[in-house]
Amino acid sequence: MACIVQKYGGTSVGDIERIGNVARRVAETCRMGNQVAVVVSAMAGETNRLIDLVHRITPKPNMREYDVVVSTGENVTIGLLAIALESMGVPSESFTGHQVKILTDSVYSKARILSIESERLRRVLERGKVAIVAGFQGQDENGNLTTLGRGGSDLSAVAVAAALRADVCEIFTDVDGVFTTDPNICTRARKIQRISYDEMLEMASLGAKVLQTRSVEFAKKHGVKIHVRSSFSHEEGTYVLQEESQMEKVLVTSVTYNKDEAKISLCGVPDVPGVAARIFSPLAERNIVVDVIIQNISKDGYTDLTFTVPKSEIRDALEIIRPVAGELGLREIRTDEDVAKVSIIGVGMKTHAGVAAKMFRTLSDEGINIQMINTSEIKISCVIREKYTELAVRALHDAFGLEKEVSV
Amino acid sequence: MACIVQKYGGTSVGDIERIGNVARRVAETCRMGNQVAVVVSAMAGETNRLIDLVHRITPKPNMREYDVVVSTGENVTIGLLAIALESMGVPSESFTGHQVKILTDSVYSKARILSIESERLRRVLERGKVAIVAGFQGQDENGNLTTLGRGGSDLSAVAVAAALRADVCEIFTDVDGVFTTDPNICTRARKIQRISYDEMLEMASLGAKVLQTRSVEFAKKHGVKIHVRSSFSHEEGTYVLQEESQMEKVLVTSVTYNKDEAKISLCGVPDVPGVAARIFSPLAERNIVVDVIIQNISKDGYTDLTFTVPKSEIRDALEIIRPVAGELGLREIRTDEDVAKVSIIGVGMKTHAGVAAKMFRTLSDEGINIQMINTSEIKISCVIREKYTELAVRALHDAFGLEKEVSV
Repeated sequence: MACIVQKYGGTSVGDIERIGNVARRVAETCRMGNQVAVVVSAMAGETNRLIDLVHRITPKPNMREYDVVVSTGENVTIGLLAIALESMGVPSESFTGHQVKILTDSVYSKARILSIESERLRRVLERGKVAIVAGFQGQDENGNLTTLGRGGSDLSAVAVAAALRADVCEIFTDVDGVFTTDPNICTRARKIQRISYDEMLEMASLGAKVLQTRSVEFAKKHGVKIHVRSSFSHEEGTYVLQEESQMEKVLVTSVTYNKDEAKISLCGVPDVPGVAARIFSPLAERNIVVDVIIQNISKDGYTDLTFTVPKSEIRDALEIIRPVAGELGLREIRTDEDVAKVSIIGVGMKTHAGVAAKMFRTLSDEGINIQMINTSEIKISCVIREKYTELAVRALHDAFGLEKEVSV
Repeated sequence: MACIVQKYGGTSVGDIERIGNVARRVAETCRMGNQVAVVVSAMAGETNRLIDLVHRITPKPNMREYDVVVSTGENVTIGLLAIALESMGVPSESFTGHQVKILTDSVYSKARILSIESERLRRVLERGKVAIVAGFQGQDENGNLTTLGRGGSDLSAVAVAAALRADVCEIFTDVDGVFTTDPNICTRARKIQRISYDEMLEMASLGAKVLQTRSVEFAKKHGVKIHVRSSFSHEEGTYVLQEESQMEKVLVTSVTYNKDEAKISLCGVPDVPGVAARIFSPLAERNIVVDVIIQNISKDGYTDLTFTVPKSEIRDALEIIRPVAGELGLREIRTDEDVAKVSIIGVGMKTHAGVAAKMFRTLSDEGINIQMINTSEIKISCVIREKYTELAVRALHDAFGLEKEVSV
């Protein structure tokens, strides 16, 4: 008998009929002799409806109360799913975040999970019942309601799986699994069977939207095996797990892209110690994620500094940088929103040379100019002009042979 | 400095604009130097929307989970009201039923409040904040969510007022207070200034919808002064409180009516001990409230038994009675849905004779036949044909001079 945690997102529970489908799938998993805990999101559209209500009062709501409002959607879904299961004769019990003591810090609207009390859930499972847990929500040590931020239900599911030491955490979604790249722009994209936490982490942070970064981090830390799969089929999806020896056979696992990047260039930066800190610390304090950073060779004691930020945050970033630029006597600030980032990811890179060179050559063969480069142990990112994004993705996917099934 | 509990119903918080109005009213009460705790219902229509979702799954839902779903509406309102108050610069904090430990029994969908932990609320009030509490909801001793039934937010408000030993519990509604009778059918109906708990209890159970019976009972038991008033004006409404000497000057305080009554007659009931119990016990077990009961004089060892039940429950009642009737060998079961009950209420009756006679004469003068009579210390009810209801109410209102302001 396995212990399985299943997570269904907003689309999967978007209306009464779909909740019925989820209930049937859960019932099926039970009948195969498994203990099942289910984590659900709010019905599709519901969280946005609640956020809209809040924003009709004020654009800058009190965040404790914001969380009180936006966490209600999940409570509706857990109750409805339990009712659907009970009406099929499958005993079940629903739990809000506070009922299973999902303890978080007090950073409203993007709280971090600290712990989950597993006893109550375990008792329910041992009595042969399905435990249904509200995703996205928790409470801090003073009993205040908190939410985990967008995609937080994935994190809830992984945390519940960790607390129960479940055999697998199944993340049900509207795609068949994790793909070698976006199938919408590359028809040869292929479903990946197994991928390591580290690769998945890079993919998530580089723009693949299938899993939220924090839930992969949590899974890696607690060794939770994730199975990303479709709620519309019974086929296996993609397993996310610890790096395995088979994985090393592959040089590159996937190609990702991100069009939500903007480039900021600071020209005439005095090349003295402490300057970078004075520029980047205030950005970090305001939670603006700076990605690729390039510093040119110094000339006459001055240098140029270029970096990327999310497009949605470029105004905020400029607002923060301008006073600093004034103090430092910079010559010029240039921005460029006409950029995108394409990346290749693979644990195989660690032990193989020549991957970067092959990437650069592939882009060059297509006549695509590389503006910036960023690398880590298992990924290489290039910033290019936005219009070349799809071309670059397809070329790289071909060049590294990602369409071919890997024999494991 | 007074401690005031204010309760706003679903219509008062029906949309964002109205929530703004409520916030302004609460802010005003604070600025006058009061400590304010607010109890709110779900936005108008929201609870029905949730019930509808449930019923689209099954007509007979698991009631634990039913309560999980239908209690969410109040969580939305507390958060939105707190956000509105905070955005006006009025510090406030919202609380769900479990956060202030509104402990109830485990009778889902109509739980009874056992206790409320007042410390957390008191601390918030003492720090000069408005405490906003979700009405209608609680939790049982095992931490399961419960709801208090329709109108349960009134009960929540009274319970919060009792726990805080508040000076007054203001119930805001869309009418100006409690009237001598329904102003819709009697234009001379007059707002009552002060009314005793007992009279209010009779009014509530006899069909006046302004306050729920259980909340008046709770208020009486804990000595909570209730002020029923309009959310659209600043005029005083009606105080519900302990019987006072002034009240005795009035013979009759109000006239009520209830068209939701149906009559069941059992003919040829063996007149032996234990028969009534065999008939009424199973009805009580199924929570069917039997009101007026009349037993005819026995003839040849047989009698007739007539009683009323709510119209909506007549099918259930018959279903329960039929097998018993079979066992007892009853001659016939007759039903009549063409009935209504009109009642006069007043603590003055206790010490004055002739009130009943005056009521009967008034109805008789209008040519209205009285089918059944029921009396208590402070009320007299008559069952009549439904079509005479309005006529009877107006005649009684006139006969007892209820349109006249009483000098207190």
